[in-house]
Amino acid sequence: MQELRVDGKRLWDTIMETGQIGATPRGGLNRLALSDTDREVRDWFVEACRSLGCTVTVDEVGNIFARRPGSDDSRDPIAIGSHLDTQPSGGKFDGIAGVLSGLEILRTLEDNHYQTVAPLELIDWTNEEGCRFAPTMIASGAFAGIYSTEFAHASTDRQGLTFGEELERIGYRGKARAGDHKLGAYFELHIEQGPILYEEGTTIGVVTGAQGQMWYDLTVKGSQGHAGTTPMPLRRNPVLACARLAEGVNRIALNHPPSGLATVGLIEVSPNSRNVIPGSVFFTIDMRHPDAEQLRAMHGELLTLVNQVVADTNTDIDLQNVLEMPPKQFDARCVGMVRDAATRLGYSHRDIVSGPGHDALNVAAVAPAAMVFIPCEKGISHNEAENAKPEDVTAGANVLLHAIMEYDRRTAVAV
Amino acid sequence: MQELRVDGKRLWDTIMETGQIGATPRGGLNRLALSDTDREVRDWFVEACRSLGCTVTVDEVGNIFARRPGSDDSRDPIAIGSHLDTQPSGGKFDGIAGVLSGLEILRTLEDNHYQTVAPLELIDWTNEEGCRFAPTMIASGAFAGIYSTEFAHASTDRQGLTFGEELERIGYRGKARAGDHKLGAYFELHIEQGPILYEEGTTIGVVTGAQGQMWYDLTVKGSQGHAGTTPMPLRRNPVLACARLAEGVNRIALNHPPSGLATVGLIEVSPNSRNVIPGSVFFTIDMRHPDAEQLRAMHGELLTLVNQVVADTNTDIDLQNVLEMPPKQFDARCVGMVRDAATRLGYSHRDIVSGPGHDALNVAAVAPAAMVFIPCEKGISHNEAENAKPEDVTAGANVLLHAIMEYDRRTAVAV
Repeated sequence: MQELRVDGKRLWDTIMETGQIGATPRGGLNRLALSDTDREVRDWFVEACRSLGCTVTVDEVGNIFARRPGSDDSRDPIAIGSHLDTQPSGGKFDGIAGVLSGLEILRTLEDNHYQTVAPLELIDWTNEEGCRFAPTMIASGAFAGIYSTEFAHASTDRQGLTFGEELERIGYRGKARAGDHKLGAYFELHIEQGPILYEEGTTIGVVTGAQGQMWYDLTVKGSQGHAGTTPMPLRRNPVLACARLAEGVNRIALNHPPSGLATVGLIEVSPNSRNVIPGSVFFTIDMRHPDAEQLRAMHGELLTLVNQVVADTNTDIDLQNVLEMPPKQFDARCVGMVRDAATRLGYSHRDIVSGPGHDALNVAAVAPAAMVFIPCEKGISHNEAENAKPEDVTAGANVLLHAIMEYDRRTAVAV
Repeated sequence: MQELRVDGKRLWDTIMETGQIGATPRGGLNRLALSDTDREVRDWFVEACRSLGCTVTVDEVGNIFARRPGSDDSRDPIAIGSHLDTQPSGGKFDGIAGVLSGLEILRTLEDNHYQTVAPLELIDWTNEEGCRFAPTMIASGAFAGIYSTEFAHASTDRQGLTFGEELERIGYRGKARAGDHKLGAYFELHIEQGPILYEEGTTIGVVTGAQGQMWYDLTVKGSQGHAGTTPMPLRRNPVLACARLAEGVNRIALNHPPSGLATVGLIEVSPNSRNVIPGSVFFTIDMRHPDAEQLRAMHGELLTLVNQVVADTNTDIDLQNVLEMPPKQFDARCVGMVRDAATRLGYSHRDIVSGPGHDALNVAAVAPAAMVFIPCEKGISHNEAENAKPEDVTAGANVLLHAIMEYDRRTAVAV
């Protein structure tokens, strides 16, 4: 059993195969949550799991659970999961490497007639990316009781379509209640999406926890007018307010080095015509810090900045805090099993704090959880150029396999 | 003949009637150049002119000429014109008041069996607004030989559709060569689109010329990346570059008071996702000044600013100067006829310099031209709330009528 290894080539081929669903011309993926391509990859996933003898259930927020029985099926399942949705111009590995590593583990166990004591579950979480429906990780959040199902269903994209309607449309609004589903433990593999492992040449990141995040929606209202006639001192210009806030949050992040981060990723100008002073601007701010105290300080600095900009530009600004996720620690025992598996398998590894949010952070609220990071090229992610090495994906899947087998062994003994 | 007056109620009713074509819920218009609603209003216009006995020709850039014969039809026509296209959330008067005042003048002359010596022409210029196809006033520019027909046809909207294709699609790509069409003189009525007449309570603006304009397209390229992992000092952030340029051009305009103007009206962020550092930003700058020297200075300051921002943000910026229109003077004799008509009719009036560009400024390159401004409420334009008073529209149309009759009389005597 110590010799069990995943089939790295099969895993890589599967990543490339599903990478055709929603493929972009530049080698990336556009598979927005609850889009037609999301449906297509879900259908593929369900079929792949059923062909291994798994039973598949879907909950009311679209999370898919594929279950492989254990020798003692009354135990809470050990779960592996991640997500199959992507950014509008995302890569082939973000989330996908995690789900398909889980699939490869099920295939490996099946090939080797290896039965765990506890049942195993492989999970595809809905709308991890959050770029279509805010907040991010809304469905693992509903699973963990952080959001209500009603809140998730009511989330609306920029075209006015709701999460609930779109879930219904693609046929993945299941009957199982979100959260009525106990897990014994949860493990997730993911690309790092940062440069640390890649630049060090380290194969495995043992994720001990994650930085905190704050997401904001801002709507600035000014006075729409003719660009050729309205004197400068009379203008109430929402673009100027947005520009000052973009500059200001950049400065706030720089004021909290080296880990403070701030990003204005989305801007929508109305009416967006070159010779019209815009009447309003909608934009987003994403701020992160691994230290709760410092993140709170950044939040306070943002509120001060907004008031200053309102006063200076004579605009009105509505600020909504759409996501508030404090820094988190994973379960020490599960983290230890990941670290031990990497050591036993002979992979170079280091402890690491996650920059991005992950479904595992939501699941950690209701089950012991841990994560495995693998390097991605130059740390580039949320980009069509996102890339990972086949040997690193294989290594990560092997660590995941041995961590769950160890968890299964130890809990079987303990009971 | 001195007693001839337009029918103000009929003119107002006509403005309200055509205001149904492309009407927006908030009382404005969305009638983008070469859209289906542009076609609809053109069809209405052609029919209205033909019903008065006019012959209608369309040139190869879609300009529509409706001709009413003179007693000496060998003379160059005296023309009245403006445009029927609008901003995406524009008003009911911008351009439209000019074309429909011309129509009302033709109707008034017809009702009174009044025949001018020179033929009269009423013109609808294509794509004055320039918000769909840059540059603005592209078709009166082609008429005046400022742009080639090929250049106009190749102009592309943000969806990649060309001016030529869209002209063909709506059935207004005529056979007459643009510019093979001599005018004796050209008069245009327009709302002021600024607050001067409105705030003074003056009825008529005698337009002596127009400020200069410079339009720019900027594409900033940085490095797309994950908002949760890329350390601040390593970022190449195009939004930050755009923010600094928006702040900077605002400062440039304020450095050239009181007439300097600068506007960032359109911004497109890619991929425009809240947790992705954008890879690129496209945006526009519109700068104006009535003094050629100062406008050149503003242009120079912008180039310096762009270089500074490139250096400070480690981004690449491509800057295209898509419109360069120096300040202009209208024909003194035509301007005098507008001023005299306002005086004779007893309307309060003042000389004024136009803030926006107008087709008349292009036509002025090939024919003596002048303009009549009327007040609009609070100077608001390029906005659904744009409004004008019926009595001011009537007054403007009467000034236009008497200016062309006077021009016709004087040139008939002179020959």
